[in-house]
Amino acid sequence: MLHLYTAKGTCGRATLIALEEAWVGYELTVIDFSKEEQKTPEYLAINPKGRVPALVTDEGVLTETPALLGYVAATHPEAELLPTEPFARAAADEMMAHLCANVHPAHAHIRRGHRWADDPAAIAELTRKGPEVVESTMRWVEDKLVGEWVAGARYSLADAYLFTVANWMEGDGIDMDTLPRIRDHRARVADRPATKRALEKEAG
Amino acid sequence: MLHLYTAKGTCGRATLIALEEAWVGYELTVIDFSKEEQKTPEYLAINPKGRVPALVTDEGVLTETPALLGYVAATHPEAELLPTEPFARAAADEMMAHLCANVHPAHAHIRRGHRWADDPAAIAELTRKGPEVVESTMRWVEDKLVGEWVAGARYSLADAYLFTVANWMEGDGIDMDTLPRIRDHRARVADRPATKRALEKEAG
Repeated sequence: MLHLYTAKGTCGRATLIALEEAWVGYELTVIDFSKEEQKTPEYLAINPKGRVPALVTDEGVLTETPALLGYVAATHPEAELLPTEPFARAAADEMMAHLCANVHPAHAHIRRGHRWADDPAAIAELTRKGPEVVESTMRWVEDKLVGEWVAGARYSLADAYLFTVANWMEGDGIDMDTLPRIRDHRARVADRPATKRALEKEAG
Repeated sequence: MLHLYTAKGTCGRATLIALEEAWVGYELTVIDFSKEEQKTPEYLAINPKGRVPALVTDEGVLTETPALLGYVAATHPEAELLPTEPFARAAADEMMAHLCANVHPAHAHIRRGHRWADDPAAIAELTRKGPEVVESTMRWVEDKLVGEWVAGARYSLADAYLFTVANWMEGDGIDMDTLPRIRDHRARVADRPATKRALEKEAG
């Protein structure tokens, strides 16, 4: 059975939503970042990166949200969670890569600048500039989001991932009324039964 | 026909290798970062991010290396460029996501700290700490790379992407003898005919 390790409010929520969309049985552990549970020897044995999410499968542990979302979709084809047509799939992959490579690092600079700097003044500068960088990465998403969903006419797990990241925006100092397509997209994903179940399970 | 926009020595090289592995006809434009060609109105109309790679297809423009590699593989299934078995594919996706989300941002802090800071002292601090962060993200790759290739028994485009990023290491101040599996993997990928053709085309 799959076992997902995540933490509240993190990008691990996207995979939790994916498992609920797939209607698959799974075990869930919500670790507590405030207790530094991601740094315990037990957790580091599962994910040496000391981050979430991690998905334990019968074949081994997987990390990185795009890989987890792709795995859940590929192992539950009947749920049609990612497009199979090449260009639509690439559009989903493009959004997932943009979120993990550009938006998420920009967001992390606001509170986790110690990853890239030791000097307190430099860390403060990363915090200060962070919202401007986050906004610029999300502006690309706003411009791209011309339809109801990220990749073609159907909901996909790229939408679950965008929803997860979009929930960080107010905390990052972004006024969502300046990103109206993302704001409305977030409301559409929030309204899905699987999203509601995932949020309930994450809250515990 | 596909049209790839890349620049010398960048992550766009991975997609150039992919096109050569697929034996597909394509057009190539190698833009010159030293002339800021990524910021011209003509290029920004293709990729508003002002970065490479961008792949122009008959259905639209795609950005982000994992999406481009996935698209080339999906549209040329006969070349078997990415695994189709779900766990092996997820292992390839995990490596591609790690490279774009963790290694590439760490690398960018060394010379492009202005993306995340305006203060010159903070930018200098990002440059200083950069090699340590790059090393830690590549340490995970080194520990993961137990076999000949990234994802199962066969070469895949995740290997082309790792090769591309591994070529940055000396410039980032990393001694490749401290990452012997990645060093040897890089030599294996360098030896492939498609890699050699791609490097020749990139050099122009």
